[in-house]
Amino acid sequence: MLALQLGRNIRAERSRNGWSQERLAEESRLHRTYVGVIERGEKRITVCNCKKIACALGLPLWELIRMSEENGLSE
Amino acid sequence: MLALQLGRNIRAERSRNGWSQERLAEESRLHRTYVGVIERGEKRITVCNCKKIACALGLPLWELIRMSEENGLSE
Repeated sequence: MLALQLGRNIRAERSRNGWSQERLAEESRLHRTYVGVIERGEKRITVCNCKKIACALGLPLWELIRMSEENGLSE
Repeated sequence: MLALQLGRNIRAERSRNGWSQERLAEESRLHRTYVGVIERGEKRITVCNCKKIACALGLPLWELIRMSEENGLSE
């Protein structure tokens, strides 16, 4: 499922930056618990919030999505 | 805004296919009025629903997002 793989990739990119979930939440102006939920793929993220996270991580959103589509199981 | 450009690109791709909103809704298993709302950029679309639309249009989601990020105003 795309949400699950997207969450894994967000977590991996966050870890690569050496950031806590709290730090990513601050940088992307989202709530810390929301970031946790997204990383676990538990909630359907909106494209706009996903863009905020990608921006905070210094990636274009399409790149984050591509990683997730290519590494994940297709739906 | 990304949602607006994404909606424009979805509409453009749908038109390229010669599809009505109704047809795109059927193909992507979403409600017809929801497709209209998304094309006008009025509602924040989830990544999962956007994936359904991209699949129906025969595009990888990252490609649809890339078009929208590169043609749109950055947020």
